[in-house]
Order: sequence, then C-alpha cells, then structure tokens
Amino acid sequence: MNYKIVGRIISKILALEALFMIPSVIICAVDGTRKTCLSFALSIAVILAVSGLMYLICKNAKRAFYAKEGFVCVGLSWIFLSLAGCLPLVISGEIPSFIDAFFEIVSGFTTTGASVVPDVEALSRGVLYWRSFSHWLGGMGVLVFLLAIDPMGSSSLHLLRAESPGPSVGKIVPKMKQTAKILYLLYIVLTLLNIIFLLFGKMPVFDAVCTSFGTAGTGGFGTRADSIASFSPYIQNVCTVFMILFGVNFSCFYLVLIRNFKELFKNGEIKFYIGVIVASTALITLNVYRIYGNVGEALRHSAFQVASIITTTGFATADFNLWPSFSKAVLLCLMVIGACAGSTGGGIKCSRVILYIKTFVRSIRQTLHPQKIQLIRLNGEPTDEKIIKSTLGYLCAYVILIILSFFLVSIDGFSVETNISAVAACFNNIGPGFDAVGPMSNYGGFSAFSKLVLIWDMLAGRLEIFPILVLFSPSTWRRS
Amino acid sequence: MNYKIVGRIISKILALEALFMIPSVIICAVDGTRKTCLSFALSIAVILAVSGLMYLICKNAKRAFYAKEGFVCVGLSWIFLSLAGCLPLVISGEIPSFIDAFFEIVSGFTTTGASVVPDVEALSRGVLYWRSFSHWLGGMGVLVFLLAIDPMGSSSLHLLRAESPGPSVGKIVPKMKQTAKILYLLYIVLTLLNIIFLLFGKMPVFDAVCTSFGTAGTGGFGTRADSIASFSPYIQNVCTVFMILFGVNFSCFYLVLIRNFKELFKNGEIKFYIGVIVASTALITLNVYRIYGNVGEALRHSAFQVASIITTTGFATADFNLWPSFSKAVLLCLMVIGACAGSTGGGIKCSRVILYIKTFVRSIRQTLHPQKIQLIRLNGEPTDEKIIKSTLGYLCAYVILIILSFFLVSIDGFSVETNISAVAACFNNIGPGFDAVGPMSNYGGFSAFSKLVLIWDMLAGRLEIFPILVLFSPSTWRRS
Repeated sequence: MNYKIVGRIISKILALEALFMIPSVIICAVDGTRKTCLSFALSIAVILAVSGLMYLICKNAKRAFYAKEGFVCVGLSWIFLSLAGCLPLVISGEIPSFIDAFFEIVSGFTTTGASVVPDVEALSRGVLYWRSFSHWLGGMGVLVFLLAIDPMGSSSLHLLRAESPGPSVGKIVPKMKQTAKILYLLYIVLTLLNIIFLLFGKMPVFDAVCTSFGTAGTGGFGTRADSIASFSPYIQNVCTVFMILFGVNFSCFYLVLIRNFKELFKNGEIKFYIGVIVASTALITLNVYRIYGNVGEALRHSAFQVASIITTTGFATADFNLWPSFSKAVLLCLMVIGACAGSTGGGIKCSRVILYIKTFVRSIRQTLHPQKIQLIRLNGEPTDEKIIKSTLGYLCAYVILIILSFFLVSIDGFSVETNISAVAACFNNIGPGFDAVGPMSNYGGFSAFSKLVLIWDMLAGRLEIFPILVLFSPSTWRRS
Repeated sequence: MNYKIVGRIISKILALEALFMIPSVIICAVDGTRKTCLSFALSIAVILAVSGLMYLICKNAKRAFYAKEGFVCVGLSWIFLSLAGCLPLVISGEIPSFIDAFFEIVSGFTTTGASVVPDVEALSRGVLYWRSFSHWLGGMGVLVFLLAIDPMGSSSLHLLRAESPGPSVGKIVPKMKQTAKILYLLYIVLTLLNIIFLLFGKMPVFDAVCTSFGTAGTGGFGTRADSIASFSPYIQNVCTVFMILFGVNFSCFYLVLIRNFKELFKNGEIKFYIGVIVASTALITLNVYRIYGNVGEALRHSAFQVASIITTTGFATADFNLWPSFSKAVLLCLMVIGACAGSTGGGIKCSRVILYIKTFVRSIRQTLHPQKIQLIRLNGEPTDEKIIKSTLGYLCAYVILIILSFFLVSIDGFSVETNISAVAACFNNIGPGFDAVGPMSNYGGFSAFSKLVLIWDMLAGRLEIFPILVLFSPSTWRRS
C-alpha cells in the first residue's frame, strides 16, 4: 500500500468538500440562522485544517498506484467525506446525535435518501441545501469530480474504475480527464434544465434547486415532509421524466450529442430499462386504478413511483405502503434491478441483470448441449468471460451481504417486512422501504447498531461493495 | 430427442408407483374405509393400463441417450408420477379439487410438506400413509430407485446426474447401479432405525412409520394437525437427531461404513452444516429463552425448529411465527441454505453456499490483485472452473425464478411476508413459511393460479431447476 498517495488524494477531497460548504454558509447568513451559519463556518475551518495537515504529511508521495490503491482511495475518501460532512449537522444541533447525523449524510452522499429526521421542515435551509447537495455530488462521484479538475495521470483509470457504477468502466473518450469532464458537463447541463422546468411550474427557487439536486443524484431528500406529494401534477411529471433521464447511462447522452445514433440503438441496456419502466407502470396502473378512480391520476402516481424506485431516487407522491401487494411486489423487484450502469442510480444495475438473465439462459442451453461453447452477447458483441465472472462474483457478494445485514438488523425486533425492505432500500440506495420504513416514515426507530449496519450497506451499495470490503482485508494494509 | 426411450422409462416408473400404492389398499381394507380402498384399487388399474400402453408403444426404442434425454426423463417422470399419484385423493373425494390434490402430492414427492388440507386428522389412514410414503420415495429419488433394481447401462449416469441434488454428481462407487443400491440400502436402514427409536418412545406404529417417512425424505407431512407438538419431548428429540442425519450427504455414511475416516474429516460441507446448526440453535435459544422460561425447553424447541428448517423437513413443535423477528431471520437464512448435497434435503445446499462464499472471497482477492490466478479449494482440492460456472449459473436461475414466482403469487393480495416466505418455502421444499402460511396454517387460501406457480416451484426446487426448465425449451423437442 502506498499510504501517502492515498492520503494526498483524500486531503484534496476534503478541501473540495470545505469549498462546497460555502453556499450553505451564505444561505444561513441570508436566512439569519446564526448558529447553523457559524457551525458551517467552523466545520469548514476544521476540515481545511485536517486537509492541510494531511497534505503536508503526504506531500512527497511515490507515484506507485495500482488497482488496490484505487479501491482503498475510493473507500476511504467516502468515509472521510461523510465524517466531515456530518460536522455542521452535529455542531449546529439540528441533528444532535452523531450516529444520526452520520447516517443522514451517508444517506446523502450515497444518494440513498433514507432519513432519520422525523420533521424535515424543521431543519434550516442551510442544512436542507447541504443534504440535497450531497446527493448531487455523490451521484456522479466525488473522485470523478476531482479527476475532471485535477489530472492525475496513471491513477485516473483505477480511481474511475473503483468509483463508477456498473460491471465495466465506461470510457467515453480515450482520455480519463476528458471523460470525467464530459460526464460532469452533461450532469450540470441536465441539472440546470431540471431546475428551469421546475421553475416553469412555479416551484419556489430554493425547492427547485434542492429537488433537482435530489433528482440528479437519484437521491431522494426533499424539502418537505410529504416529499413531492403536495406539489402540482406538472411538477410531479417533470420529476418523473428527469428521474428516468438521470437513470440512463451518461454515455448515451454523449452518443446523442455526437449524433452517433447507430451505436445508441445497439445499446441493449437502455431498451431493457425503458421496457421495464413501461411494463411496470402499466401493471401498477391497472392494480391501483380502483384507489384513484381515474386513469390519469393512477398513471401519474404509478409512473412517478416506478421512476422513483427503479432509479433508486426515493421521492414519493403516494404512500405505496398502502398499495395492494401486487404493486408492492413490482416495486420490490424494481428496487433490486436498479438503474443503468454509468448513471447516478443504484441497485444491481440493468446491465448486470441482463447478464444474469443471459447466464441463466446459457445454463439451460449448457444443460442440453454440455459440449458446445456458449457465448454471451451484449449489444451484439460477445462478452469477455472475465467480466461475466466478476459480475457473478458481484451477485454472490450482493446476496451474502444482504442476508448478513438482514440478519443483524433483525436484532431490533421490527417486522420481517420492515427489516428486509430497510436493508434492500439502503443497499440499493433507494431510501424508503415498506412497513415501519415506508415512504411516509423514517429510519429513526432503529438502534445505533442497526444504523451502523445500514450505513455500511449504503456505502457498500453506492461503491459497489469492493471498495468498502477491501478496507477490511488484512492483505490490503500490507506494505509492498 | 429420443422420445421412445423416455416413454419406456416413464412407463416403468408408473408401474412402480402402482406397486407402491398396494399398502394403502391394504390399510384401507383393514380400516374399513371402503370408498378410499376402491379409489386406490381403481387408481392402480388406471396407472397400470397407461403404463402398459406406453410400454407397448415405446418398446423398440433406440439406445441413444444423452444429457438432454436424462433431464427430460427426470422432469417428465416427476410430472407423470404426481399426476398419477393424486388420482386416489381425487377419486376418493378426500381432496376433491384436482388442483388441491395435485398440489398436495407434488408437495409430497418433492418432500416439501406444504399442505392445503385444513384438518389432517380428517383424512383416512390410507391417504395419510400414501402422503408420507411419497416423501420417502421422493426424498432419495424415484429414478435412483429404478436404477437400483433395473440396470440401464449408459443412461444411468445421465439419470442419476439429473435427479441427484448438489453441484456435482456423487458417485459412491464406480458403477452406477451399485451406487444406487448402496444409497437405497443406507436409506432403508436409517429409516428403520428411526421407526425403532420412535417406537421406543411409545409412539403408535402407524404414526411412527409415517413420521419416519416424513423425516427420512425431509418432507414434513405428519399425521396430526399440530405436527409433532403433541408428542413427548423424547419423540421430538429423536426427530431432531434423525432430521439432522437425513440432511447429511449419504456418501458420508458410506465412508463411516467402510471406515474411511480420513476422507470423512476432509469433508468441508459436513463441518459447515454442523457448524450452522449449532450456531443457529444457540442464537435462537438465547432469543426465545424468555418465552419458555427454562433453558431445556428453549433448547429443545430451538434445535427442533433449526433441524426442521435447515434440512427443509418442515415439522414443527412450536409456532415459530410467534417467535421474535431475530429468530425468524435466522430461520429465513436457514431456509435458503438448506441441507448437504447428496442428502434428501432441499434448499440451495451447503456445498453451493460454501462455493458462493468462496467465490465472494475470491472476488475480493481478485480486486486487490487482478493479475493473480485464484483457485477455489473445496475439501482441500482445487475445484473445476466448470463446476463453479454451473454453480453460479444455478444462483442466477434460483434468484430469477424466486423473484418471478414472488411476483406472480403476489396477484392474490396476501402480505409481502406471506408471499416471499410461501415461495421460499416451496422452492426450497420446506413447507411452512411465515404469516398466512405459518407452521400452524396451510396453503389452501391461495388461488388455483398461485397454487400452480407454487407447484412449479416445488418441482423446480426438488429437481434443481434444469430438468423442469428444459421442458419449456423448444430446442429440447427437436428431433435429432
């Protein structure tokens, strides 16, 4: 392990975070919430001091940087980011318990959107902004941001690979720095478009910005206790469309920009993603039609909830906890599938699900013809067996960790439905689950131990397990 | 496809089944339940007629027999076996609905033990015996039985491979016929021992025989409405021990017989199996201690329920539906793990779970050292990558089919807990689930459609998915 280079990168990440806290200071100053304003300022000072100290210690780092360093760097960065990010919440007393504040901000950065705050509207606007902004930053990735502004040579690929979601890293252009820049430019433009469309619907500016951050990162923290339910149907529909957009692989937007439609139409993942959304919305609309009495409203609520769950955003316009169990079953399946690889969404990711289905079909063929070599094709091209192997390894890890977490969280004694859905909602970075953690409830009732387990799940889910897991492997920490 | 050879094997299976129904005729004659007695006799006549007709049509079959024929043969045999097996239940009117009777007997042959009968004690003893005997026959496998008495040359390996549970076929001795014979001899001896031990506890002979059949096949149909709860603690403990024994890979018993203890102690699966049983029993005892007030009783009920669930038997001495959710979580995990490969138990099987855990650990190592080749060792020897591949394919199939079934069963509108646990309990051949399908309830409330889905799950679970799935693949039915 090259400790110093890891330290240096983390020091940069912390400095960036301090910078990003400045808007909250300004908002608090304007609103006159003095205590919170000072808390943010103090936090910035502390974070900058730590960052500076780390930088000085790790200044003369060797250049050696391999896959291992990449994973450790990403895993540790996110932990430091969250520890620093919860400082203003604790200091200001808006979320006085450290574990609650840590849960809340990890939920922010990992774009989960699970909250322990019973009354969101009691929080100051500075804190609300910071919560929502953490979604935005976590959505596309903080190391990707660093790469976009600071070239890091050979380490870039390892970092991008460790932080980007999906079975294989999607380089948009050959150069990593360019890829990171294009990603963030697309991200900023889409977020701005989202804000503009919301403003057209007469949403207050502050709510429009925060809601857009939550949508862009597919996070789900809102500014109101009932999420998006009290906003107009127009605003709800805008959210639906943008949630779906932010669940798309960003390389698709780039293909649209450079007018490479041929390549775009070959993409099997996006067809699958749209197909699942359309089918699920249709099924749920049929199922909840009776509750709402007219097709329009049933369709609006179904589409919103489907988009919110499959992209793992977690906004809500209806309490789907009260829907019939068939609709709940559809949503539970969507929770697991998740959005496209290379998007800001979580879950297993559509491309992996496609690979699992194809592996399944291959197993049937292999059963019938054991001697034949069977290739798996994605987007018309045969897939590397190494990618299939690592994707199947991911499935093992996913299932084992979910079962283990479920087991640990059960100690608290909530219902089986609550426990399974809480773990699924945190691991897949969705936010709301069923029963005691439904869309109109919160995670405050869990014990500190369960909250730690769920924090671990959120981080493991967002970073796709391995960057967090390698931190626990002794061989990681051996000096080479 | 060589249709004729498949037809010939199925005709033999049906003839065997008719033979096995004779004890029920005798029991009914002794008890004086005339209608049921005649129903069994009539069923035997019908089955023999069909069997004879099939044999005549398929007499001059070609010898060509490959993996495909093996899987189709096993899949179809089990479906024919169940269709014929439910005849006496329907004709006698003891379970008048065809779909209910089919569900009940599939549940029997697949050793699931899920029942649609609200009052078991209202059934005649002939039917009770037949239900329990179906567990016994299904447990070790009906084709294995046929192989033991009728040599089938080159087709034996394909048949044994398709019907035996576990990631790879366990030949005990080089010759297939000998292997099948040894398996059934061990099975008969252990079943007799079980009966004797139960008789020592003053259990009535009929109950002892039926309970032993249910234990041996790890099925779970009993003779009383409250399962084993009203029998003495001694009888309950005997059941616990024998359930655990029947969940062990039968090749281990053979190793004991030939005194090859060195090979036995190298077996990682059995260590894992015992370890999980001990740990789960300890955890649940601690958790339910308060309910029972003393360690002895808490331990007895915990051990019984753990043994019953991990071996996928499904007997009960306590309504674990009323236990705290941590205990339920432990049981839910055990449901998925299941017994050892090569036993009569269901579930994913310990050896596969070990392989998944090792694949998971390998993925972490691969992350840290992408260039190194990492082998997976089982019982001290490196595992063939082909077996790993097919075992991972099995996981994909398992997860996809469980999600799909859960989705379909949800249409009925029961709770999420009921639906998930019903599918898990049927697919893993356990029997009781939670909530509306708890150990003291039954599956009668589901719609005919859901019952069909669950029947499919039970068959797919017992035959490890592929023999049932290939029946749906068009390429199976192409003439070669």
